[in-house]
Amino acid sequence: MSTPDAQADDIHIAMSKSWSAFMRYRQSSLRERHALLYEIAAQVEALHDVLIDIAASETHLPHSRLVAEKNRMLFQLRFYADVAQDGSFLDLRIDHAQTHKNPTQPDIRKMNIPLGPVVIFGASNFPFAYSTAGGDTASALMAGCTVVVKAHPAHPKTCQLLADAIQLAVAKTGFPDGVFQQLFGNAHSVGETLVKHPLCKAVGFTGSYTGGKQLFDWANQRPEPIPVFAEMGSVNPVFLFPSKAKQAARQMADMLADSIQLGVGQFCTSPGIIIGIKNDDLDVFREQLAQCASASNPAPMLHEGIYRNFIQNRSEALHQPGVRLLNDMPTNIPEGYASASIACTDARYFLTNPNLHEEVFGPFALLVECRDMEEMLDVARSLKGQLTCSILAEDSELDAYRDLLDEISLHCGRLIINGVPTGVSVCHAMHHGGPYPATTDSRFTAVGPDAIKRFTRPLCFQNWPEHLLPGALQNSNPMNYRRMVKGNWTNPNADA
Amino acid sequence: MSTPDAQADDIHIAMSKSWSAFMRYRQSSLRERHALLYEIAAQVEALHDVLIDIAASETHLPHSRLVAEKNRMLFQLRFYADVAQDGSFLDLRIDHAQTHKNPTQPDIRKMNIPLGPVVIFGASNFPFAYSTAGGDTASALMAGCTVVVKAHPAHPKTCQLLADAIQLAVAKTGFPDGVFQQLFGNAHSVGETLVKHPLCKAVGFTGSYTGGKQLFDWANQRPEPIPVFAEMGSVNPVFLFPSKAKQAARQMADMLADSIQLGVGQFCTSPGIIIGIKNDDLDVFREQLAQCASASNPAPMLHEGIYRNFIQNRSEALHQPGVRLLNDMPTNIPEGYASASIACTDARYFLTNPNLHEEVFGPFALLVECRDMEEMLDVARSLKGQLTCSILAEDSELDAYRDLLDEISLHCGRLIINGVPTGVSVCHAMHHGGPYPATTDSRFTAVGPDAIKRFTRPLCFQNWPEHLLPGALQNSNPMNYRRMVKGNWTNPNADA
Repeated sequence: MSTPDAQADDIHIAMSKSWSAFMRYRQSSLRERHALLYEIAAQVEALHDVLIDIAASETHLPHSRLVAEKNRMLFQLRFYADVAQDGSFLDLRIDHAQTHKNPTQPDIRKMNIPLGPVVIFGASNFPFAYSTAGGDTASALMAGCTVVVKAHPAHPKTCQLLADAIQLAVAKTGFPDGVFQQLFGNAHSVGETLVKHPLCKAVGFTGSYTGGKQLFDWANQRPEPIPVFAEMGSVNPVFLFPSKAKQAARQMADMLADSIQLGVGQFCTSPGIIIGIKNDDLDVFREQLAQCASASNPAPMLHEGIYRNFIQNRSEALHQPGVRLLNDMPTNIPEGYASASIACTDARYFLTNPNLHEEVFGPFALLVECRDMEEMLDVARSLKGQLTCSILAEDSELDAYRDLLDEISLHCGRLIINGVPTGVSVCHAMHHGGPYPATTDSRFTAVGPDAIKRFTRPLCFQNWPEHLLPGALQNSNPMNYRRMVKGNWTNPNADA
Repeated sequence: MSTPDAQADDIHIAMSKSWSAFMRYRQSSLRERHALLYEIAAQVEALHDVLIDIAASETHLPHSRLVAEKNRMLFQLRFYADVAQDGSFLDLRIDHAQTHKNPTQPDIRKMNIPLGPVVIFGASNFPFAYSTAGGDTASALMAGCTVVVKAHPAHPKTCQLLADAIQLAVAKTGFPDGVFQQLFGNAHSVGETLVKHPLCKAVGFTGSYTGGKQLFDWANQRPEPIPVFAEMGSVNPVFLFPSKAKQAARQMADMLADSIQLGVGQFCTSPGIIIGIKNDDLDVFREQLAQCASASNPAPMLHEGIYRNFIQNRSEALHQPGVRLLNDMPTNIPEGYASASIACTDARYFLTNPNLHEEVFGPFALLVECRDMEEMLDVARSLKGQLTCSILAEDSELDAYRDLLDEISLHCGRLIINGVPTGVSVCHAMHHGGPYPATTDSRFTAVGPDAIKRFTRPLCFQNWPEHLLPGALQNSNPMNYRRMVKGNWTNPNADA
């Protein structure tokens, strides 16, 4: 499928249509948005295996993985819609007038309102969960924003199928068709024109650091800067503590090797750096890790661009001083395929060479060997912002090295103990984000219902007549939302 | 008082000290921070009238206003400390492990953690409430961040007194003295060095658009961009609907004239633009407004710089095509003094001249006269982001012009009906913020306990042993915080 790039005119028409639709859609109730998200899920389900087949042909991802990811996409749509119904994400606050106070206080209420049309850039590595009908679209729509997706050029047919399903759902639920639109484009200028369009009010992005940073800069160069939620690269450091290495070197190596090669390493949470303490136990761990990696089955990467970048970035990492390859990929695998490989280096190289901190997106990890726990702390201090960090340790070590845990926690959005970073549960408590450069806004999550909040801002209502207030802020609490009234939280079903 | 500018070395020492203190202070409990904020309030109170006298001498603000503002500062410190105690701002979420699910879900919990050292730039127009010990300092400290204040050069002695009080409170509550520091500096390079220092993790600012935008740009140019909460200019448009003008032209004029001259117009919420419908009622309103303004008492502005800018910006506004001055300031008032004056123009000039949308910080307002409600809607559409918009209208008009209300709501952070924008209540429901360029981040408030959230980000804990989790996330909920557990909200005193 070759769809011509959207031109400046197309983009302007789409954004204007998105804005008109927004002026109506923003008034929709949470129930109506719930109906829309459920209908989207239903329409996507109605595509049956056609969707999986098309996606498989475009992404080289195995059917089983695509089925699981499709289920996750459907779950996200319904879960976000369900969770939003108690109105928590609106951050409702009511302070009644207080005429006896000095100074007197008028009636003041506030709630979160949608930002406006959101431009979303899908990820190539998640054709369902982070693409056209993924988490960004689900949360923007639930927030009351209209959506313009820039389809990912690596899976255009999948994007088209999903966009058709969404547009059908929009029509069936009676919303204007500008609520959701999709544009195509390979050229960077398409993204630039979208992000710089005055009617674009926020941006969602999942992809590379280079791409996300470019959108962030464009957004900040606008006459009116707008928020960019770019979820970018991460090397997801894993700290292997010495007692754990002594107790379970092989088991830890097996677990990490599985995580490294999962999805041919094409996850933003793929572990790219493992930090251990040089000793005999680490020798065992290193050997086992390399062996497992050697034994991994080569599999096709998502697309040629990702494959080329992987080969190049891996090669650059391997050419850094002090880096030694432990196992190479087989030489006889087809073009576009990759399998897991591991390199190792000494912490003193890692600490002095920023190139070794860069992500190699694909099935590759660097083992960083430290002299002692003090040097491991230095490595932790040297880390850039990460989506995740993981610690593999015995309980006694966790107690003994609280300072190291504290330091590590400064560098990530999610801190995992005795587990691997791959696998992002879609639940209330998930935070999929992290300090820059893992994301451009560490304060918001890309996964879980709290992602809805990214696309809202507060609006305060002072001295409004009751009947003109949005229902969410009326005294009678007609929708039974959770609210803070005069400093006290009300439960649903409790009157204000 | 002439304090030499902080040099690059001083700044580096201060930021390093702030970071060291942060590594300890971030572990403090909400109770301990509560004790600190209360002790700061106590130490400030212990300054008695000395503080008021010094501030009066530096700002030319009347004693009564300063006493009221000091009370507000004290209230903020105690109110934020009190409200934070239920842990709401931590956004606590707990999802227990679910091994029966497919895919299985590990134990996942999250909470907001402090960002790091915060650099705060105080405002010249609020020597107490938005300066050294103002809302930014109170909310950053409550969030668990350490603070470095860049003292405002217009009231250095006041800043010094307050900083001494805070440092005394820090010492008395047993925190390291790096928790709070203050630096002085007139040169822009002081601000630039502070904002670009790698250990600075967030910025709070209240002041002009030029100043705030500069900090925002510096922050985004850093290798690691950081959030900037700059509360900047606003013209706070007031829409006078025709029936209200017919019913109460004189009363509305009196009310607005009071608001315009309040504090010699030196509030970020001062009404700078009034929009009405051309007719006989507006003639009455216009005349009364000009008369009230004429009758206002000249008073000294805060400092020479603000006075000079006021005179220049007002003069520029008056020289725009189609602008007519209704009443001038008396010619015989002392240098540095100002009184209220009003100009008027036709909406067609306003709609085509961006200069007329610029803030004139001081006691000056522009009456924009529209042909009809359609043109008033055009004016609303043309507005930049504002802290506030106000609507003066009869109830019947509010019902009739819902589209106009909707449009206006897109352009502001607070929408007031039949009231004036001046007077920002410190309460839960306050939102003091607004779309750019009113602020650099429309999603956060500078006033009210929700301001604490500006200085936090989520951290997710996956698969942690219970005893290593922060108390806030332990199953037993030892601090009785409000939390969402398995999707259900728990009340304080209810177990997880």
